[in-house]
Amino acid sequence: MTIDADRDRLVELNEDFYAAFEAGDLDAMEAVWVDGDLAASVTCVHPGWPVLRGRDEVMRSWAMIMANTTYIQFVLTDVEVEVGTDFAVLTCVENILTAAEDEDDGGDDSAFAGAKGVATNVFRRRPEGWRLWVRHGSPVISDTSDDED
Amino acid sequence: MTIDADRDRLVELNEDFYAAFEAGDLDAMEAVWVDGDLAASVTCVHPGWPVLRGRDEVMRSWAMIMANTTYIQFVLTDVEVEVGTDFAVLTCVENILTAAEDEDDGGDDSAFAGAKGVATNVFRRRPEGWRLWVRHGSPVISDTSDDED
Repeated sequence: MTIDADRDRLVELNEDFYAAFEAGDLDAMEAVWVDGDLAASVTCVHPGWPVLRGRDEVMRSWAMIMANTTYIQFVLTDVEVEVGTDFAVLTCVENILTAAEDEDDGGDDSAFAGAKGVATNVFRRRPEGWRLWVRHGSPVISDTSDDED
Repeated sequence: MTIDADRDRLVELNEDFYAAFEAGDLDAMEAVWVDGDLAASVTCVHPGWPVLRGRDEVMRSWAMIMANTTYIQFVLTDVEVEVGTDFAVLTCVENILTAAEDEDDGGDDSAFAGAKGVATNVFRRRPEGWRLWVRHGSPVISDTSDDED
């Protein structure tokens, strides 16, 4: 594969990841992530969460998150991919739309909430193709940059 | 270098990064990060911040953060390093102690605040050695649920 073909494939695989989350499709989610000898080193940081390690634990967390997500949609911007020999790193901004959780409102499902996140997704080159190996997502709490720290 | 030597060097370089931050030493901070043809792709996500791109912008943010940090100390736990041909990925838990910002209290500097973060630090292998290239830090907001099992 050329670097450009790798890059295209990685952008596509990254989109597969978000599509699996949006669809609540755990099988599709599992297919995106690395398995085999790298299963134990699979790592995921959900926004605001502590680090999770190991494919089994990470997949359990996705099952739980999906079960608790009514609606979520991602629009990705500022996508940057860098391809190495055996690793690739993709960083992007996640513009997120979710169903607002307002249960005492009863019945009206038309409320949505917007949020912004940043993700660093690290992929590994495998005999079967690229696979997601480390994901770190975080919430953008302040977008003004000088009022933190 | 053997994988073990790489691993040791990366753990050390990662410690240099935190030591530079703790000391408020911008020169030491600059020495840790990649430069040259990769300067434009240097990427940093400070906890809760949007993504910053480019070595100059990232270094400006460090100068600002250091100028606004009275005291900070990191104890790293759960450090995992994976070494590739040209990339290396280190993930760790940051146990953070800072001076609590309580200015209307006037005079009493003895207050500290604890916090917990997670970091994914990606390094690149360069002719001059390993250098930090992408850093993603995030706050651990909830340590409850079923994440630590």
